[in-house]
Amino acid sequence: MFSLKSTKDELDRIVELAKRRGFFWPSFSVYGGVSGFYDYGPLGVLLRDNIIKIWKEKILSIGGIFIDTPNISPEEVFQASGHLERFYDLAAVCASCGSKFKVETLLQDNGIDESRYGEFTTAESLNENNIRCPRCGSKFRETTNLSLMFELLSRYGDRGNLYLRPETAQGVFVNFRNLLNFNRDKLPIIAAQLGKGFRNEIAPRQALLRLREFYMGEVEVYLSNDQNFQPESKMKLKLLPRDGVTRFLSPASAVQQKIIRDPNMAYFIEIVYQILLDVGISPERIRFRQHREDELSHYSSDCWDAEVTISGEWVEVVGVADRGTYDLTRHQKYSGFDLTSKDRQGKKFIPRVIEPSFGFDRILLASMISSYSERKKGYKVLSLPKRVSPYSAAILPLLRKDGLREWALNLYSKYKRVDPYATFDESGSIGRRYARQDEIGTPYCVTVDYDTLNNGTVTVRDRDSTKQIRIKSEILLRDGGILTASKEFDFTG
Amino acid sequence: MFSLKSTKDELDRIVELAKRRGFFWPSFSVYGGVSGFYDYGPLGVLLRDNIIKIWKEKILSIGGIFIDTPNISPEEVFQASGHLERFYDLAAVCASCGSKFKVETLLQDNGIDESRYGEFTTAESLNENNIRCPRCGSKFRETTNLSLMFELLSRYGDRGNLYLRPETAQGVFVNFRNLLNFNRDKLPIIAAQLGKGFRNEIAPRQALLRLREFYMGEVEVYLSNDQNFQPESKMKLKLLPRDGVTRFLSPASAVQQKIIRDPNMAYFIEIVYQILLDVGISPERIRFRQHREDELSHYSSDCWDAEVTISGEWVEVVGVADRGTYDLTRHQKYSGFDLTSKDRQGKKFIPRVIEPSFGFDRILLASMISSYSERKKGYKVLSLPKRVSPYSAAILPLLRKDGLREWALNLYSKYKRVDPYATFDESGSIGRRYARQDEIGTPYCVTVDYDTLNNGTVTVRDRDSTKQIRIKSEILLRDGGILTASKEFDFTG
Repeated sequence: MFSLKSTKDELDRIVELAKRRGFFWPSFSVYGGVSGFYDYGPLGVLLRDNIIKIWKEKILSIGGIFIDTPNISPEEVFQASGHLERFYDLAAVCASCGSKFKVETLLQDNGIDESRYGEFTTAESLNENNIRCPRCGSKFRETTNLSLMFELLSRYGDRGNLYLRPETAQGVFVNFRNLLNFNRDKLPIIAAQLGKGFRNEIAPRQALLRLREFYMGEVEVYLSNDQNFQPESKMKLKLLPRDGVTRFLSPASAVQQKIIRDPNMAYFIEIVYQILLDVGISPERIRFRQHREDELSHYSSDCWDAEVTISGEWVEVVGVADRGTYDLTRHQKYSGFDLTSKDRQGKKFIPRVIEPSFGFDRILLASMISSYSERKKGYKVLSLPKRVSPYSAAILPLLRKDGLREWALNLYSKYKRVDPYATFDESGSIGRRYARQDEIGTPYCVTVDYDTLNNGTVTVRDRDSTKQIRIKSEILLRDGGILTASKEFDFTG
Repeated sequence: MFSLKSTKDELDRIVELAKRRGFFWPSFSVYGGVSGFYDYGPLGVLLRDNIIKIWKEKILSIGGIFIDTPNISPEEVFQASGHLERFYDLAAVCASCGSKFKVETLLQDNGIDESRYGEFTTAESLNENNIRCPRCGSKFRETTNLSLMFELLSRYGDRGNLYLRPETAQGVFVNFRNLLNFNRDKLPIIAAQLGKGFRNEIAPRQALLRLREFYMGEVEVYLSNDQNFQPESKMKLKLLPRDGVTRFLSPASAVQQKIIRDPNMAYFIEIVYQILLDVGISPERIRFRQHREDELSHYSSDCWDAEVTISGEWVEVVGVADRGTYDLTRHQKYSGFDLTSKDRQGKKFIPRVIEPSFGFDRILLASMISSYSERKKGYKVLSLPKRVSPYSAAILPLLRKDGLREWALNLYSKYKRVDPYATFDESGSIGRRYARQDEIGTPYCVTVDYDTLNNGTVTVRDRDSTKQIRIKSEILLRDGGILTASKEFDFTG
């Protein structure tokens, strides 16, 4: 495999490919763009939907249920959740041009350790440390808290203020009673929500890494007072607990060694890890890092982030937080509704919640970066898992003439009835078309050639080995299409 | 089948079932609710996802592509689209209590034909016709235009005003160049977007029928200057053109008879019809009605609505609109970008767009209502198509004792590896559990009984015939699970 010179431009390389081939690109570019917003193109939508399907089916397989609540939420929800009071970014205001910058970003850009954040909350401290406005070079005038929530201009006065939710979790919490009814009063409940989250970031940068509108999948696990979940597999993964010493351990061993204090947390760390592997992120790129005390959100008492290396930096893609009884306690207090469950003795209690929270935009990016390689200089391959690739197969006539095109189109039309996730390509040399499909991760190319006209066989080319086999075309038309049929293919010959 | 007394309470009946069993319910009820917002519960999410999958795979099968753009959009988009200027509801303001009501709703509630709308645009005309404030009974003071768009309070001054999109279509239009590049400059392009739309309705009522936040699937079909689409099937459907005379015709015949003027429109009416049938809406409930001239949106020159009878009224669930070149022309003018394509002679032109626009909340509701029946008084069955039902199967131990429970749990655990969309139920008599699954539409119940312990066979009960067959349990564990295996089941014996 062609060796990549540096990991530094991993992100740039994927962003270029993504834009050129139709995975994602900045939104509203015809109107000059709006920072922090990205569109998914035709291949990106298919890729993202496949990733979400893997997530959804994993959650279902462990007994999870789903719920879907609005993006627009009334103020009461965020009074109770604490977001109105505490969900702010500290911004520094330039004394000259008036621009506002997130203090955290200023520290990062000036090479200052984020853990020293507390020292830099005033304009004076920034100025004394020679941190200047990145736009005009002037000193800062003041620092100010900027809410990360988008507020709506509500017009009709039939409600108080409305906001766009900064997380999907609150919709799950305010429905705790409904979920408990659905589950016939039994705990634990694994209740997930897939949807958009909105954060009015001060100055978002970097494709898909920091968006103002993003895809989340949050899983609220309401625990009973008995034993709930235990990690099961012996799979080892990289853990970086708060003591700063990296271990390579199974979640079960980490519980025994008291590195992860709660078996429920360990169980969901394991589930998260399996999902990240299933969507095509290589294990060497993944670690689970425990939050420092000063990093924890206002609602959580412990948190392990799944982080993935992107361009040499560790980027959070999933957080597994112990939200304790914080949210239900607050909603019970603010709403006056009984949000308790009953234990075996009939005693009321507010269940503890742990929350694996997935950021799908980043997971998609990590999956693409992790799957990318160059077979030789400039020949790009996206070795996405078969179930994740945007297209399951490409159907190609070797040439347009001599009836090959018609044969291929006819096969394509029949094939789509068993698997609509295929594509058809007839333009350019066959080698060029293979290269085009390799670059977008299509696992199989099915070619209709002159032998096909004689005996109805087609070649199937495997993306990863580049080897080809010849099969009867009818094999592809069975239930499940090529992804099922390929279980019997042998490309080792 | 038990005969339903009246169609009038179809909606109420489904709303009751939906809430009780966990399909959908009003949002934020612990905080008193916010009108126009609904949550999907665990069964509703599964049902909706299945409906959307059928829609998505149909669009893919006819060569469609997908795109996903943000909910939050800058003002420029809606200046160009005309929404800022024209997307209003006329409201009447009460002279006494100040309440605002949509004039259209006032007319409906007073039994006045909506086509007379134009006469009632002033408070005087309402008052003269004895239309009074529904809240306090007073006269109206004035009428006023209320924007249907939600506006955001944007805080950072790095952009002008931001809005929540009232339709997903504009995100597809502003990306026309990207889509044309993706398709290597070829037309037609079928470009769809699934996502939320937001409309600040004045006083939304009726579960899932009029929401402030709703699921849309809009398909923008960019047409070439040559022949594009032709209706194919001979399937007849009910058409109500502008002349008011209902016909029962295939879309192809309707084109020949010039009832549908454009074969492309007819083709997509056919596609829409197939999707509505596939998600379980019975053909007798569906008609396609052409808009009156005065009903057309500001951007469309022709429109056929797919309407479904719900509680005896025709409700729009899909609109198939001819948007002409309106949107691209406007975006080209406002953005300064070239949004033309080239014809075979290399001449530039702005492609015409036709748009099938699906409202998934209403489609889901229509699917449930259409599938509902009572086998005998109080015994409710939701005969949803197999691919649409929330659960594919329920696995049930006949009794909890004698190892039946363990056997069933073990089967359930293995079964979920081939099909995670199954459920397990062990509480109550077996008859009660069958009834419970019938009510939520589960097509098959798999029961583990004493024979199972002896020979590994289980019974499979068919929801619609209530008949049972006995099969080896391993048959269920093949790829695709019960929905694939059931192709070989025979419940006629």
